[in-house]
Amino acid sequence: MAKVKDLLWNEGMSVRDLTNSLGNVGFQSVQLNNAAKVIVKMKKEGAKIFFTFTSNMVTSGLRGLFAQTIQLKLADVIVTTVGGIEEDIMKSMGEKFDIGKFSSDDVELYEKGENRIGNLFIRSESYCKFEEFMQLALKDLYKKKKTWAVSELLKELGLILKDENSILYQSAKNNVPIFCPAITDGAFGFHLYMFKQKNPDFIVDVVDDFKNILLSTSHDEKKGVISLGGGVSKHHALLSCLLNGGLDYAVYLTTSHQTSGSMSGATTDEAKSWGKVKDDSDASTVIGDVTITFPLVIISAFEELRKEGMI
Amino acid sequence: MAKVKDLLWNEGMSVRDLTNSLGNVGFQSVQLNNAAKVIVKMKKEGAKIFFTFTSNMVTSGLRGLFAQTIQLKLADVIVTTVGGIEEDIMKSMGEKFDIGKFSSDDVELYEKGENRIGNLFIRSESYCKFEEFMQLALKDLYKKKKTWAVSELLKELGLILKDENSILYQSAKNNVPIFCPAITDGAFGFHLYMFKQKNPDFIVDVVDDFKNILLSTSHDEKKGVISLGGGVSKHHALLSCLLNGGLDYAVYLTTSHQTSGSMSGATTDEAKSWGKVKDDSDASTVIGDVTITFPLVIISAFEELRKEGMI
Amino acid sequence: MAKVKDLLWNEGMSVRDLTNSLGNVGFQSVQLNNAAKVIVKMKKEGAKIFFTFTSNMVTSGLRGLFAQTIQLKLADVIVTTVGGIEEDIMKSMGEKFDIGKFSSDDVELYEKGENRIGNLFIRSESYCKFEEFMQLALKDLYKKKKTWAVSELLKELGLILKDENSILYQSAKNNVPIFCPAITDGAFGFHLYMFKQKNPDFIVDVVDDFKNILLSTSHDEKKGVISLGGGVSKHHALLSCLLNGGLDYAVYLTTSHQTSGSMSGATTDEAKSWGKVKDDSDASTVIGDVTITFPLVIISAFEELRKEGMI
Amino acid sequence: MAKVKDLLWNEGMSVRDLTNSLGNVGFQSVQLNNAAKVIVKMKKEGAKIFFTFTSNMVTSGLRGLFAQTIQLKLADVIVTTVGGIEEDIMKSMGEKFDIGKFSSDDVELYEKGENRIGNLFIRSESYCKFEEFMQLALKDLYKKKKTWAVSELLKELGLILKDENSILYQSAKNNVPIFCPAITDGAFGFHLYMFKQKNPDFIVDVVDDFKNILLSTSHDEKKGVISLGGGVSKHHALLSCLLNGGLDYAVYLTTSHQTSGSMSGATTDEAKSWGKVKDDSDASTVIGDVTITFPLVIISAFEELRKEGMI
Repeated sequence: MAKVKDLLWNEGMSVRDLTNSLGNVGFQSVQLNNAAKVIVKMKKEGAKIFFTFTSNMVTSGLRGLFAQTIQLKLADVIVTTVGGIEEDIMKSMGEKFDIGKFSSDDVELYEKGENRIGNLFIRSESYCKFEEFMQLALKDLYKKKKTWAVSELLKELGLILKDENSILYQSAKNNVPIFCPAITDGAFGFHLYMFKQKNPDFIVDVVDDFKNILLSTSHDEKKGVISLGGGVSKHHALLSCLLNGGLDYAVYLTTSHQTSGSMSGATTDEAKSWGKVKDDSDASTVIGDVTITFPLVIISAFEELRKEGMI
Repeated sequence: MAKVKDLLWNEGMSVRDLTNSLGNVGFQSVQLNNAAKVIVKMKKEGAKIFFTFTSNMVTSGLRGLFAQTIQLKLADVIVTTVGGIEEDIMKSMGEKFDIGKFSSDDVELYEKGENRIGNLFIRSESYCKFEEFMQLALKDLYKKKKTWAVSELLKELGLILKDENSILYQSAKNNVPIFCPAITDGAFGFHLYMFKQKNPDFIVDVVDDFKNILLSTSHDEKKGVISLGGGVSKHHALLSCLLNGGLDYAVYLTTSHQTSGSMSGATTDEAKSWGKVKDDSDASTVIGDVTITFPLVIISAFEELRKEGMI
Repeated sequence: MAKVKDLLWNEGMSVRDLTNSLGNVGFQSVQLNNAAKVIVKMKKEGAKIFFTFTSNMVTSGLRGLFAQTIQLKLADVIVTTVGGIEEDIMKSMGEKFDIGKFSSDDVELYEKGENRIGNLFIRSESYCKFEEFMQLALKDLYKKKKTWAVSELLKELGLILKDENSILYQSAKNNVPIFCPAITDGAFGFHLYMFKQKNPDFIVDVVDDFKNILLSTSHDEKKGVISLGGGVSKHHALLSCLLNGGLDYAVYLTTSHQTSGSMSGATTDEAKSWGKVKDDSDASTVIGDVTITFPLVIISAFEELRKEGMI
Repeated sequence: MAKVKDLLWNEGMSVRDLTNSLGNVGFQSVQLNNAAKVIVKMKKEGAKIFFTFTSNMVTSGLRGLFAQTIQLKLADVIVTTVGGIEEDIMKSMGEKFDIGKFSSDDVELYEKGENRIGNLFIRSESYCKFEEFMQLALKDLYKKKKTWAVSELLKELGLILKDENSILYQSAKNNVPIFCPAITDGAFGFHLYMFKQKNPDFIVDVVDDFKNILLSTSHDEKKGVISLGGGVSKHHALLSCLLNGGLDYAVYLTTSHQTSGSMSGATTDEAKSWGKVKDDSDASTVIGDVTITFPLVIISAFEELRKEGMI
């Protein structure tokens, strides 16, 4: 049985050394170090990796690290919500988001055209820029064909962006499909609706895309999931793996607790009862703000895999 | 300024008396009593009420209270995730869910065919029953037409169920549309996919349904939201109201906190910066397990509205 | 195995009926109903009941319900922190606390002499009133003897108050000792220090009071704990029972989760490993705001015990 | 206004570089970087630093980092609970704590003599070792004098330990007083009680120690607090600073939220209303598991201060 060891600072300490030491500290730090190890293992074992995150994380600066995770081939399938796609595009168009306070005066923000997400603000102008992008892009897509599965459509958009820090661009470039089961739930959906008003035969086929995610892996393949936050993104990845025989590896980073029975709080233990995580799988759940836990976990995994020449 | 008053028990105390007293206790109890008042107000003012909840809440016994809320005309538009629709149908077919422990042995549960959601279990057989239902229902729907908006499709299913405690049945009967932007994210999606394999011209049109939710209200109408939990359901209702000029009333019941910038933790304050809740709106956010807070809030609102002959 | 049952509203529904129904709803509501049952059982079995709460709960209107719990003989030993004692005394002197907002302007409050605890405010004047009370009371106590165990001292103060809604008064009247292991951690401590400056032989003996709590029960006696929140109050009650052979019944109501290893988040399961809760004990942990969960739990227990003529 | 910047990994990335980057990510990561900056500032400005933590953190491997914080003179006054003192002593005597699971079988652990704190276990034998230490130490102390303030007593114990990783030893060696307002709330209290049974004139004077903490600083001095977790430790430090005119700098790291009005969840904003944190103070609250957030914050502060030759 592992023993608690006193954590000590050494000058110039690296992230990897810190995470390693956290493995002997206790409480969530133990699970954090274990999460890094599970990711290293799923990569080494050649598992197909499902990577899920929520929209607010793309609003944050984690977006660069997500693009890098795709670029370094630690993600084979992406599942996310549509807000994240919108904000990835805005950032690729040069829009900057502001950092403010959780306790801002919200009426004042509204009057200034600032839209608050926690302690981050998106200006209404950024949505106008996004609208321009969508109007042009949808016209081009429609010329090619009338019926689109969501992931096909997102790939085309990614190819336009040409931004190394973009999730959509890195996904398109590296042939990593992005699934977004609730594609209409945002400004993106509004632009689809407006476009369809003029072009009623334009169809976004979500059932076809469910086929695509199911066929993105197989029963024979080893499968792992790295899930940040909860919601539809997490559930959809787990479901797709379950219908392919269940997961071999699972890492969940979330702020939610299992006590309310929510998807965001569901632990890697619960997933076993669904056959989602197999009995003998390697799994770790870390409770905490993902803007802190994910960088520690993924950077430590990157360092380990780089050292071994795997990335 | 309101004053703290000592809460005292009276024999035979009613839920309504308790909630009223909680208004002078402090911390979340104040916000809970306020939530009941905001719901009474949105009903009295004739607001169009958007009601959102997550799948795990339908797994729980809240499902009956949700059906009752629709029946008593405190919900004009429903937004939810697909798991809740599946489980509403299972329950209407007589399936019973088990109550167990959060700390169950999940591998053992898996072997027994029990699927855990917090401390509730759904037997795999219930999913087989659901499959039978869907296969028959989809055949019938397909005979009527080839392209369906999600809410149209759910209305047809509701009419089949004929169960007073069913969310789908009460919605269909009372002309309350159910929107489900991520319709493929569950067993439901799998059955749609299987059906479409044999009938490729069967189309589920999500963009068309986004039009339906946008047109379900208007700028001129007063609008309120009662949102339980977070995720796509909450976001979709807020977005639809925002695109119609913003909300007048908002009640959020959730276990999540705003500190991680998630949708589930977003407060009624944050919504003001999005123009979602208007400056002068009446709003209340209650942090806590919705299986406890929602019954207190809605029963107190029911009692008050019944007393005034409004329901 | 218990089954999920749909919760339905009946007009005029009582708190007891609601709590009973919650037992078949799911997630925390199941544990809430179980908590009420465990309290009924510990009373029926004649267990010695340790009742613990934190200072902020006495600031809130729960104070009346705490006094009532003592009056109805559902508490045999109290453990709390000193802030709660101060505010119980202030309320007995007629001071009123204000209900405001969590997001108040704190600098403005400071300038107005309002001290914020969540969404409750205590005016600085209330501390002046408390000072007057203490100066007189300590003089009287000192005349009687020089060395006081904390619980002896609190009993004397309680006898002065003569307020049916007071925790100290009901405790004194019903011979229920109040233990407060961190008696100096508040304005109370400051007044003790000022008094001791003039009267250096005045001694508050905390070690002697630890003897008193240890001897307040015995190995032979059945023991139960009702613990609200965490901290020193919860730990001290558990420790005292552990040193007397462990608990038979335990109910913990708290907002904290076990994932950080804190005392406030420690569950009734964890207590088993300490011998604190015995293997076969009846126990329930409910996660949620205590201003909501405690009234539901204790009122339901009161109703049940009244029906059976036990209180 | 600061802008969100995409976080990117560089090979061999240091903890300091990561924390700096987190300052532009969003949500809690922004507050985490700010916390490191506030600590650097309070040290540079020569503030008297109050450092508080809870017992479970000493059980964890943070203990080494706490001792190092004292050694590097980033703590001038310590406030903690007695469990942490017990476990610091056990570790100095060579006792090792085990790392297990949150979901352990607690009855089995009890039978094996393992006492669980979250996912850490302390063997009952470690308490026997602690007992031996206390019996000898108290005899020696009693020979010197009969009446002890808590902090005096803890200094004597620290001097015996001679372990560089010990909180008590580093405190004693560096003349940093340790205050523990609830000294009887643990095995330590039990040994005090047993000793006093034989030596009734042995007095532990908590009121005298309240004087000591009040006089440990002054109105004129700049004051800062670094508070980990909540409870009596946090409250006692804030109170002592308040009675000396309020704080200039405050850093709170905690898993609790302000929504229940608890001390552990109280933010640095709330403290302003108490005059605890002055209007113009520099302050940061970080929500998250302290075993993860504290190492990031303090190591980044250490690196910065070392670079500037301050430590």
